[in-house]
Amino acid sequence: MNYHVMTLFPEMIESAVNCSILGKAIEKHLISVDAVNIRDYTLDKHKKVDDYTYGGGAGMLMAPQPVYDCHKALIDKISSDKKIRTIYVTPQGKVFDQALAQELSNEEDIIFLCGHYEGIDERVLEEVVTDHISIGDYVLTGGELPALVMMDCISRLVPGVLSNEESAQTESFDEGLLEYPQYTRPEVWMDKQVPQVLLSGHHANIDKWRRERSLERTKKRRPDLYEKYVMNNKKE
Amino acid sequence: MNYHVMTLFPEMIESAVNCSILGKAIEKHLISVDAVNIRDYTLDKHKKVDDYTYGGGAGMLMAPQPVYDCHKALIDKISSDKKIRTIYVTPQGKVFDQALAQELSNEEDIIFLCGHYEGIDERVLEEVVTDHISIGDYVLTGGELPALVMMDCISRLVPGVLSNEESAQTESFDEGLLEYPQYTRPEVWMDKQVPQVLLSGHHANIDKWRRERSLERTKKRRPDLYEKYVMNNKKE
Repeated sequence: MNYHVMTLFPEMIESAVNCSILGKAIEKHLISVDAVNIRDYTLDKHKKVDDYTYGGGAGMLMAPQPVYDCHKALIDKISSDKKIRTIYVTPQGKVFDQALAQELSNEEDIIFLCGHYEGIDERVLEEVVTDHISIGDYVLTGGELPALVMMDCISRLVPGVLSNEESAQTESFDEGLLEYPQYTRPEVWMDKQVPQVLLSGHHANIDKWRRERSLERTKKRRPDLYEKYVMNNKKE
Repeated sequence: MNYHVMTLFPEMIESAVNCSILGKAIEKHLISVDAVNIRDYTLDKHKKVDDYTYGGGAGMLMAPQPVYDCHKALIDKISSDKKIRTIYVTPQGKVFDQALAQELSNEEDIIFLCGHYEGIDERVLEEVVTDHISIGDYVLTGGELPALVMMDCISRLVPGVLSNEESAQTESFDEGLLEYPQYTRPEVWMDKQVPQVLLSGHHANIDKWRRERSLERTKKRRPDLYEKYVMNNKKE
């Protein structure tokens, strides 16, 4: 899996990469992360990449030319027969979730386009972008943190990046329920006792207890997920 | 606004902070970010912070003692009369959104607790955590990137961090609709013309065109938001 990040702040990607799971996966040659500075592609003599918005409005917009030329250079470099998924990281997109991460983990190359300022000229987005993706309903300063979030999530699903033991950890979430509470040593901590059933060694009871806690917690904290889960299980 | 981040990887927070809006806001003394290593508080002679899960299951769990003592040291240092919001960053939480960011931007101190491994012993979460918050329905390696995402989003709302011009940019999103497409120079790029209405100078027509595009785009890309918007406007 090769990630290519188009950004005005490549140093932000580079510094964060080395302190996450991405760093380890790069060392193992399982993934690569290439941060490309869009500013290097502007033909403007003052190295400007932004300009005013037609029709008025606060803030500056990234101009089409540097984005287009930067993307073209990347596509030429990757030189694949396949259409390369190019993700524009934007609150105006489909919301990223585990299913989308799974789908994207099958790609060989992914390009992330990180916006700044007020956004990017729509015409170049029409030319180069295959997916508009948001990591959630909130506004951030730029696309770099969301790109890092997506790369972290997708990379966990690339074979070899996690140990088998670690990989097992998402199972609960995959089913659409929140995870049950968990406990480790000591058995009694600040007068709080680990629930007896977890010490019983009786696996069927432990599973039953955990499932009940999962349902309870999902119902309380995420009624939307709970409803979806109940609906899906009715159908079967 | 003072952020305190409890983590096993403080260097990840430190390196990313300096490359985002957080860096500039720190320079202006509008916010501070303090990353604290939970491992510094373990009483284990091998500096261990994790242990096996009671009842079985893959992966290790963070033990209660180091988390509790680290949190206590922070609370003592902050020494406020108020109860300090302590956010556990977890997929098992309420989903972060712009309204929650607004609410949190009124705090003076926020503690983020970043988990790793399979999670954290439930008993210490009961003791120290005030909010369980998720940035979305996907699984990540640790809580550091989500904490950075929340800090970026909250900081944008702290007075003085953004210029007035920049602040205006979230208005569209606040209303519950996605933003309309935007265009900058040149007027014709790769045979693509900027929509005529945006060049007309007729503000009422421009507003109407942008509103229609917002509705159209929201309906197509985020039917959930569109439905919510239509419901809310019916009520009025």
